[in-house]
Amino acid sequence: MRGNHERLVSIDEVHRARERIGPYVRRTPIMTSETLDRLLHAKLFFKCENFQRTGAFKARGALNAVWSLEPNRAVGGVVTSSSGNQAAALSWAASLRGIPAYVAMPKCAIKSKVSAVRRYGGQIIWVESRDEVPTTEEYERAVTRIQSNTGAELVHAYDDERTIAGQGSCALEILEAVANLDAILVPVGGGGLVSGVALVAKAKRPELRVVGCEPEMADDAYQSFHTRKAIACANPRTIADGLRASVSGLTFAHLLNHVDEIVTVSEGAIIQAMRLAWEVLKIVIEPSSAVPIAALLEKKVLGEDKRIAVVLSGGNADLTCLPWNEPCENMGVPR
Amino acid sequence: MRGNHERLVSIDEVHRARERIGPYVRRTPIMTSETLDRLLHAKLFFKCENFQRTGAFKARGALNAVWSLEPNRAVGGVVTSSSGNQAAALSWAASLRGIPAYVAMPKCAIKSKVSAVRRYGGQIIWVESRDEVPTTEEYERAVTRIQSNTGAELVHAYDDERTIAGQGSCALEILEAVANLDAILVPVGGGGLVSGVALVAKAKRPELRVVGCEPEMADDAYQSFHTRKAIACANPRTIADGLRASVSGLTFAHLLNHVDEIVTVSEGAIIQAMRLAWEVLKIVIEPSSAVPIAALLEKKVLGEDKRIAVVLSGGNADLTCLPWNEPCENMGVPR
Repeated sequence: MRGNHERLVSIDEVHRARERIGPYVRRTPIMTSETLDRLLHAKLFFKCENFQRTGAFKARGALNAVWSLEPNRAVGGVVTSSSGNQAAALSWAASLRGIPAYVAMPKCAIKSKVSAVRRYGGQIIWVESRDEVPTTEEYERAVTRIQSNTGAELVHAYDDERTIAGQGSCALEILEAVANLDAILVPVGGGGLVSGVALVAKAKRPELRVVGCEPEMADDAYQSFHTRKAIACANPRTIADGLRASVSGLTFAHLLNHVDEIVTVSEGAIIQAMRLAWEVLKIVIEPSSAVPIAALLEKKVLGEDKRIAVVLSGGNADLTCLPWNEPCENMGVPR
Repeated sequence: MRGNHERLVSIDEVHRARERIGPYVRRTPIMTSETLDRLLHAKLFFKCENFQRTGAFKARGALNAVWSLEPNRAVGGVVTSSSGNQAAALSWAASLRGIPAYVAMPKCAIKSKVSAVRRYGGQIIWVESRDEVPTTEEYERAVTRIQSNTGAELVHAYDDERTIAGQGSCALEILEAVANLDAILVPVGGGGLVSGVALVAKAKRPELRVVGCEPEMADDAYQSFHTRKAIACANPRTIADGLRASVSGLTFAHLLNHVDEIVTVSEGAIIQAMRLAWEVLKIVIEPSSAVPIAALLEKKVLGEDKRIAVVLSGGNADLTCLPWNEPCENMGVPR
């Protein structure tokens, strides 16, 4: 992890990222729901990055990094470590530029995310680890080995200015689509998304409140934010598989400079929020996306009839393994 | 069931319906997916009626019927029989006009559909039946009893011109949004949706092919279409709970006059198609909506790189009871 005196990504870098990735990413829709507004006492605007290419916002940052590379750097390909969405996004981005992508993945990665990487042509290298979830050091070792074998450029999932600038493009779209927002709620894993969103929000509308939302079981950003010291979470067991990473020096610096508040939510609230989105919005979101909705459910963020954007970060949920499953004999078919 | 010489609903009635319901219904989005296009060899346009108010296209017809009533007829309220989506839609439509809605429901109706009716203020009357799924006669008896007690106006889920005219508004939106369509695929239950869609298609673009898609296990429309005689299906056991109804005299007349073809699909293909939509489009659709996708999967309709609209009729799936469920111990959370 790098020090606390990092260079912050600028709004100009986000504008350039948006231009660079514009032809390839989706300008995802923003959904509204009277039912959820009533339930959560706010006017909510759901930014549907679950509909983004590769099923998550990660497509933005990965694509920006890949297209930022000088041609002589690009030929060696790109490498990243990821439990899933970054792996798929970088594989996809690299395939668009016609360069190889190598991804260091943990063996516990969910099946649908592994198949997505394969579908986009990424080469998977399984990370050896003692625990089920590899440590940061184990990931780094795997990446270094791949780099020395291939000469690939590391595109970190969040500890990378190009990545953060790409994720910020999501906030530009929100601010252009929704007037008079009071707050933006963003899930926090490694902190790349919240860094990009917060820097854009503060550059464009300094009074707009940016709230990072995190599982209690992976509360490294919350702890870091409150102690003002970057703290990592070892082997977090949250269902929000996209949020198990810990903040880096770079994202921590963005947090301290641009984020107003970090709140944490229980696992039960995450599951309830995820189900609510599926049932009411009729969209598939992954547990990580449900974390900001959980913050409203648990009143960690008070709606107060304010205009609140909620970033639904991705939709790559494992459909065979839903947390609210009950045994079911007849599949709803009459006997 | 009425005779085969029914008056067909006109395109003008659909235009009037659209004006009547316009302020209340959603102009639902049309989604596209390169992944599904590649898989199914067509350029597909998914009309997302799962995002419609009350979670299904039924909101259109119910609302048209409710707002068609003269004030002195409206005061007594409205009544319908339905396993779910029509029940919720009519309850919702009646609540907008401030009149009571009575719904005769089978005891086997899925939980989420029952709670939707309650949420919209509909009054449920359970239909007594020998079998798990009530017969048409048992439904009719229940409705007649409600009418004689309340004076409510019957709004049939499909055997009703006002209903068909309302459903047709969905096709107006498709034709306005997508140029040069070659075909529209529509799920067929009682036939209200396909009647409305087909009459609009043939009025506006006679060369546009309209294909009704039905589960093999509830193939009354297919049988009726091919024998040119309205045939009912007794107690169909398909997973597509919205398609268990049989065509009526009125919808059969529309089928014969306006629909080009009816195809049937297996239960396995419906489940596979439903999962595909959830995984790739990241949207929640109910099994009935998956039937036209299943027709493409089973090559009952050949994509042939044509431009094909697929009506995704609703999203009210029972999330606790998914047909692809596997036993799942750790919910994807690392130990």
